[in-house]
Amino acid sequence: MKANTIAIAIHGGAGTILRSEMTEEQENTCRNGLQIAINIGYDLLSQGSSALEAVIAAVQKLEDNPIFNAGKGSVYTHKGVHEMDAAIMCGDTLRAGAVANVRNIRNPVLLANAVMNDGNHVFLAGKGASEFALKCHLQFEPDEYFFDELRYSQWMVAKKADKIAMDHISDKKFGTVGAVALDKHGNIAAATSTGGMTNKRYGRVGDSPLIGAGTYANNNTCAISCTGHGEFFIRSVVAYDISCLMEYKGLTVKEACAVVVHEKLPKIGGEGGLIALDVNGNIELVFNSEGMYRASAGDQSGQFIGIYKD
Amino acid sequence: MKANTIAIAIHGGAGTILRSEMTEEQENTCRNGLQIAINIGYDLLSQGSSALEAVIAAVQKLEDNPIFNAGKGSVYTHKGVHEMDAAIMCGDTLRAGAVANVRNIRNPVLLANAVMNDGNHVFLAGKGASEFALKCHLQFEPDEYFFDELRYSQWMVAKKADKIAMDHISDKKFGTVGAVALDKHGNIAAATSTGGMTNKRYGRVGDSPLIGAGTYANNNTCAISCTGHGEFFIRSVVAYDISCLMEYKGLTVKEACAVVVHEKLPKIGGEGGLIALDVNGNIELVFNSEGMYRASAGDQSGQFIGIYKD
Repeated sequence: MKANTIAIAIHGGAGTILRSEMTEEQENTCRNGLQIAINIGYDLLSQGSSALEAVIAAVQKLEDNPIFNAGKGSVYTHKGVHEMDAAIMCGDTLRAGAVANVRNIRNPVLLANAVMNDGNHVFLAGKGASEFALKCHLQFEPDEYFFDELRYSQWMVAKKADKIAMDHISDKKFGTVGAVALDKHGNIAAATSTGGMTNKRYGRVGDSPLIGAGTYANNNTCAISCTGHGEFFIRSVVAYDISCLMEYKGLTVKEACAVVVHEKLPKIGGEGGLIALDVNGNIELVFNSEGMYRASAGDQSGQFIGIYKD
Repeated sequence: MKANTIAIAIHGGAGTILRSEMTEEQENTCRNGLQIAINIGYDLLSQGSSALEAVIAAVQKLEDNPIFNAGKGSVYTHKGVHEMDAAIMCGDTLRAGAVANVRNIRNPVLLANAVMNDGNHVFLAGKGASEFALKCHLQFEPDEYFFDELRYSQWMVAKKADKIAMDHISDKKFGTVGAVALDKHGNIAAATSTGGMTNKRYGRVGDSPLIGAGTYANNNTCAISCTGHGEFFIRSVVAYDISCLMEYKGLTVKEACAVVVHEKLPKIGGEGGLIALDVNGNIELVFNSEGMYRASAGDQSGQFIGIYKD
């Protein structure tokens, strides 16, 4: 490993994102949101902050941005509320924290972090998780904070059609968010946050908060944050699969990501993508969908922001 | 693979189970419960039923038995209720279903199966999962059905001490239940069901319902059901780790289980065990705790019931 290498990657969701359907203004809004999030993470890493601090700060910025489906911009459930999931993991200690179906929490990633720091549990769900957030003095927001004209109309359309929609279907808004980072000390971390699927019901939980499925970090291999059709990512244990392909089969992070995203997931119909990063600062931004909102920055690799396939 | 081989293994939890602390009557009650569950599963397999049907039937018997911490015998949460988790997975299709924090459902394993069969989602949690159960016409039971004198007193002790207790601590009752099976068609399946930890709060979810952590099945490798201190099993993605050690490193199911349960888990303080089975009918019942309630039956391996280490 090159000493003191730093790197960070983020995503704002994957799906049917076509250049022909985006206005210049929409594209700029999106690029801008990614830029702000990647900058704050990269600046923290430059100043010597931990990978954990960097992924939290980047994801928090994405959660606060109404254009992404996480935190403030979360989609509506079947009952017209916002139920959010998030997870975080540290590659050095394998400590992890996750929450599912939480409501009115401004930054679910901070709650996942609080669960991890508390150390008693890894995964809290529903009202119980909100009680824990209250105990930790995390910031709550009223329902109106999460109200959004476009999300609301998406929900009405999905509800009328009685279907569950991934956040990217028939709209220009963006999905699940996540970040992975490598700090100067050689540690990596991953975080993911999401509002799930429009019109979701029955307390559906996707892959985002599941350690090993949507989120994983291990200094021996890589840090991963996924986005896409969560059910397929759960059944494929995507994030840990990539880690195992590296650890047990000796694949590089690039090779492992290609196998899982371009070979294994398509076989079962799993659409989506992920961001990955190893302790040498190698970054992968891979997806088998039309596009993925993504950005990366590293002192070796420079900066990149992308939306479409090309 | 030997054609038409059938095999099944079940567990009723792992933990500090000492011969010196068990009366003969307690031991017999436990052995009897395991015997009934393994018999129903094995008989089904003998008659040509699928591995899926066998694990469902075996787990259902364990859920209906008040001595095990699942279904009827579930422990009390901090609020004095019963919140149960379950998961199921098929090795041939990698289809899976899981539920967390469900209340008043007589057989959570049937709900996990209903989620899998519905096919829209993999993981439902909380009240939403109960709504789905209602839609599926699953059997509900009033709170009294889950009342148990011993579980209640355990809860009072844990509540007084303000601590969260694994079901096996300072009592003679038994933990999480699970089953893995191989059918005549060469397919394997896994199922796990639990009441979690006594006095658990904040909507805590353990490893049992998490695909890849506490439950996993894949015809290419093995079927697994775990029991123990769930947080460590989540962080270690235990079930899928065993599968990957077999698939990517070429380990046998015996070798893979030994690495994970006796080397990797102890390193991070993870106490517990698991049952595993491959498509050749090789069965593993491994644990790093004092004991594990376990049983197995196969047309090659014969029948076994065990409680303690020896």
